[in-house]
Amino acid sequence: MSFSPLIQQLIKALRCLPGVGPKSAQRMALHLLEHDREAALELAGALREAVEKVGECERCRTLSEDPLCAVCASKSRDPSLLCVLESPVDMLAIEQTGGFGGYYFVLKGHLSPIDGVGPEDLGIDRLLDRLDVGEVKEVILATNPTVEGEATAHYIAEQVREMGIRVSRIAHGVPVGGELEFIDGGTLAHALAGRRSLI
Amino acid sequence: MSFSPLIQQLIKALRCLPGVGPKSAQRMALHLLEHDREAALELAGALREAVEKVGECERCRTLSEDPLCAVCASKSRDPSLLCVLESPVDMLAIEQTGGFGGYYFVLKGHLSPIDGVGPEDLGIDRLLDRLDVGEVKEVILATNPTVEGEATAHYIAEQVREMGIRVSRIAHGVPVGGELEFIDGGTLAHALAGRRSLI
Ligand SMILES: [Zn+2]
Ligand SMILES: [Zn+2]
Repeated sequence: MSFSPLIQQLIKALRCLPGVGPKSAQRMALHLLEHDREAALELAGALREAVEKVGECERCRTLSEDPLCAVCASKSRDPSLLCVLESPVDMLAIEQTGGFGGYYFVLKGHLSPIDGVGPEDLGIDRLLDRLDVGEVKEVILATNPTVEGEATAHYIAEQVREMGIRVSRIAHGVPVGGELEFIDGGTLAHALAGRRSLI
Repeated sequence: MSFSPLIQQLIKALRCLPGVGPKSAQRMALHLLEHDREAALELAGALREAVEKVGECERCRTLSEDPLCAVCASKSRDPSLLCVLESPVDMLAIEQTGGFGGYYFVLKGHLSPIDGVGPEDLGIDRLLDRLDVGEVKEVILATNPTVEGEATAHYIAEQVREMGIRVSRIAHGVPVGGELEFIDGGTLAHALAGRRSLI
């Protein structure tokens, strides 16, 4: 026996969520249909609205439906520190440590010649333009400690160094091959505090 | 820092899914917006369509957008066996053991005087009408082994016994206080095979 086509379609669609296998998708679908149809409609609406309206922050490229995200719109942060990250999730992970008071720049990926991802796709020209303004005194490279993340950090470090701006790389505690978003706050805070200068 | 209002709304809406805490909801929302907007729209559509069109099977009351669910529409099952369950998830759990070839009746709940849930809310009148036809020779009560599930089974057993139809209760292997949908297939199959007659 299997469920009716529309329930199967819903179960299949729920599989697009990270961490949701066939069994959980089934339980989710049945739970919503049995007990919480109103919440299911709200979720449908929230998905549609977010997909239609959420774009990127003009300044840091993180996800935002406003021209400036909350961090970039804030005036109480330290403009001399700029943390460069691969993704909005990493930005959230660092924000949640509470250990960083500067601004961010989100690459939305890493250099990957094989996939045709070059510096322009990561907005590195925009990053350099921003540094050119002169307010940033230190660029903290917090790309993932993977081969691609390291290569991307190295590439940016070269450019920033030429501009005479200090460059550092988060270091201690981030396991090699790991991904920032899965690391606990304490380790991340430690990694930020123990950053080493690349100059 | 927090995410923009629409992302927060999406994160909150994702929390309606069973087993999804604040951290997973965040990761889901960002994953969809960063990498899979098409899947997010498909999920929105599947949710809306299922909520709008999935009702209940006329015969067994399980979730179905067709008048008859796949089990009730099948003619190759044994009409002398009827398994009574609390929910469509339990029906799926028993189907997946492959150890039952009869039909089902889904109560969609259990007797609960405190919450004002009486026999009529569980369709017990419809269940008795169906038994009245005379095809069913044994009613297998597979409500959850909780206080309410036992009370519901007891109530139905009384009525069915009066009609001179055999009543049994699934037994071995189902831990007391446990819920059917979380029990592995082997245990469930065993519980079905080891059912004891209530007459
Ligand atoms: Zn921003
Ligand atoms: Zn049915």
